[in-house]
Amino acid sequence: MITEVADFLILEDKSSTFEGELARAAKDILAKAKGYVGHKILSSHETPNRFLLVVEWETIEDHVMGFRQSEAFIEWRGIIGPFFKNPPTVEHFNVRKE
Amino acid sequence: MITEVADFLILEDKSSTFEGELARAAKDILAKAKGYVGHKILSSHETPNRFLLVVEWETIEDHVMGFRQSEAFIEWRGIIGPFFKNPPTVEHFNVRKE
Repeated sequence: MITEVADFLILEDKSSTFEGELARAAKDILAKAKGYVGHKILSSHETPNRFLLVVEWETIEDHVMGFRQSEAFIEWRGIIGPFFKNPPTVEHFNVRKE
Repeated sequence: MITEVADFLILEDKSSTFEGELARAAKDILAKAKGYVGHKILSSHETPNRFLLVVEWETIEDHVMGFRQSEAFIEWRGIIGPFFKNPPTVEHFNVRKE
């Protein structure tokens, strides 16, 4: 299992529209991808146009080689891309087991 | 409930020591703070010296006015601070309810 963290900075006047569109696209598109396990959307308290999308995948390949190379990704990026103020930063993380 | 996300960039040769110290200090110090709910430590796949500490607090004040103003915070920062390559970035997030 691997955790993707995508960090989005959104055009200031589009933040509330973005949040709804992201939630909808995550449910309709992302959640249907192979290897998808779950996701959360977090909105920043200090920076109202900053959002984190945290996605759990079975493997990193499911995200990078699977979803990102798929037709579904083009649709996904077409919905959320127009809201970006800057290109998002995306990294993958391992959760430390206690 | 509010989610703190602290983003740490660590001195390159100190990453594995840091991860153990952070885990220990989180259990021994952070987890005893008033309003602490839970935490996770994430290590980056792409950037081996990058870590996220994700902490759930009952309220933002429990973190900012409570923990950060406490003696325990001085001890906490004394343990993890020497490992920092750059000052960490910390923000608070609301988790979107579906």
